[in-house]
Amino acid sequence: MNIAEIEAAAARLSGRARRTPFLSSPFLDEIAGRPVHVKTECLQHTGSFKFRGAWSAISTLPEGTRGVIAFSSGNHAQGVAMAARLRRLPAVIVMPADAPALKRANTEALGAEVIAYDRANEDRDAIGEALATERGLTLIRPFDDPLVIAGQGTCGLEIAEQAAEAEISSATVLTCCGGGGLTSGIALALEARAPTLRVRPVEPEGFDDVARSLSAGRILSNKAMSGSICDAIITPSPGRLTFPIMHRLCGPGLTVSDEDCLRAMYLAFLRLKIVLEPGGAAALAAALFHGDSLDDGPVICTASGGNVDPGVFQSALERYGKT
Amino acid sequence: MNIAEIEAAAARLSGRARRTPFLSSPFLDEIAGRPVHVKTECLQHTGSFKFRGAWSAISTLPEGTRGVIAFSSGNHAQGVAMAARLRRLPAVIVMPADAPALKRANTEALGAEVIAYDRANEDRDAIGEALATERGLTLIRPFDDPLVIAGQGTCGLEIAEQAAEAEISSATVLTCCGGGGLTSGIALALEARAPTLRVRPVEPEGFDDVARSLSAGRILSNKAMSGSICDAIITPSPGRLTFPIMHRLCGPGLTVSDEDCLRAMYLAFLRLKIVLEPGGAAALAAALFHGDSLDDGPVICTASGGNVDPGVFQSALERYGKT
Repeated sequence: MNIAEIEAAAARLSGRARRTPFLSSPFLDEIAGRPVHVKTECLQHTGSFKFRGAWSAISTLPEGTRGVIAFSSGNHAQGVAMAARLRRLPAVIVMPADAPALKRANTEALGAEVIAYDRANEDRDAIGEALATERGLTLIRPFDDPLVIAGQGTCGLEIAEQAAEAEISSATVLTCCGGGGLTSGIALALEARAPTLRVRPVEPEGFDDVARSLSAGRILSNKAMSGSICDAIITPSPGRLTFPIMHRLCGPGLTVSDEDCLRAMYLAFLRLKIVLEPGGAAALAAALFHGDSLDDGPVICTASGGNVDPGVFQSALERYGKT
Repeated sequence: MNIAEIEAAAARLSGRARRTPFLSSPFLDEIAGRPVHVKTECLQHTGSFKFRGAWSAISTLPEGTRGVIAFSSGNHAQGVAMAARLRRLPAVIVMPADAPALKRANTEALGAEVIAYDRANEDRDAIGEALATERGLTLIRPFDDPLVIAGQGTCGLEIAEQAAEAEISSATVLTCCGGGGLTSGIALALEARAPTLRVRPVEPEGFDDVARSLSAGRILSNKAMSGSICDAIITPSPGRLTFPIMHRLCGPGLTVSDEDCLRAMYLAFLRLKIVLEPGGAAALAAALFHGDSLDDGPVICTASGGNVDPGVFQSALERYGKT
């Protein structure tokens, strides 16, 4: 993959996706002991960067396409549902039955049909394959698709521009990382446009398949698929397409705890006036609380999503809002 | 006052204030039954539009100025504190003792000295005048100052541009209205740049001094100064400078309840991923729940501030986040 594919995605997304703001606060800089800039993809359509990749892929489908199908617990589902609606295509989303209620409700409200399955006892891929065949649907993968990676890479083009506007000459770019679509897309964009910015993926403790894979030089998997509140960025393993890109371009991975993420959500509420979900706060959490693992200099964090159930957000305010 | 003063303020604010995004959501459009666009001034520096007016005024102070003083329960205080810090000037803020804890803490953290007074038993103006004389401080008024109005008017210049980008040819612009600095500034900007956009102020029920003054054609006052959670937009009466501008340019005022504001805060959390304080959600509340009082067509709402204590925000989620 190369920068031309990301530029082509940017052309498709022009006028469709938002150029999300770069925010900062002197209070956050003080906590981190360095300048912290936040790329607010929670303000993107459907509340996460996933709309970029979904529209990048779905906008290229030929006339006569019968519909799309996706496997997703939430943010990719909403991105696909909105992109399909814009193309007036039916969308089917195969979603675990324990997905956050808000994500399921939003996906349905955007016009998609949700098929729930039991993570423990049902085979997601078999369900999806049967549906796709029966109805002639096109599968939109969450990350391991060049059109999707290119779409997420448009976020990296904006980071390069916004870093230049903020007069940042070199920095660490922390990404909230699941399967690596956003991370690899941003890394490709920055390689071409801002090579002094180095990407490092951030994952939840215990679900650090990307960090371990980068360290081992080969694709490794997580042992479990649940047990963190960071549902948006828990994936079995990095992708076949995303891993080689990350391995070539990214620095070592970092991990954060659920508590780190809740505290970062509270601080983003307090200082930036934005709403983050736990997985969308992972990069900011690493910047604020794990600076000892970072090189000196400014940090740019993707705030990748804000689709959080009110009860989880309340618990972050409850726990950290007393001080 | 005229557009040239607002353009001059925009030049002073260039590179200092953020051009805040215009956000929307199909879910909000559906509730309102019309397109709703939100001008997100909660994402401005210090969490409200007040930084615009503060920097507009403070940036013009001559070398040798000894410091600034302001009366404010919160958002103007923070805007003045940050602007003074950028100019390396001491700032004193005279604040009611019952101001929201967060606003006081932020004002102090931005380097200002806070002098608390008892609203019921002490004379704010006397306290301020004594301090100003004693220390040689320059008073920065919250709204009745041409430089402050011009600064808030830069928000109107952006609304004119962003409405054109969104291909909005005519619309109602709802403003969260206290003393009328933001409302009159936006109205002046739109008169020159987007005369098909009509401004209407929104106030809390029972604190509708601007609506009643506009209706009577003369300045009227509120009976009380407390009893709403919308602390940011409770003022005794419209200003001597702001009222004639609003009277010439604005449509009739609207009122919203505290419950309307809490519900709008919840919906802004859910659908836009932004944090609003009650007074900053008043315009959105009017757009969503009082559409029967509006002309047909799209609505643009200022989301004027996000400095809300965590407990108040939790109560909005608690009350409306169950459905």
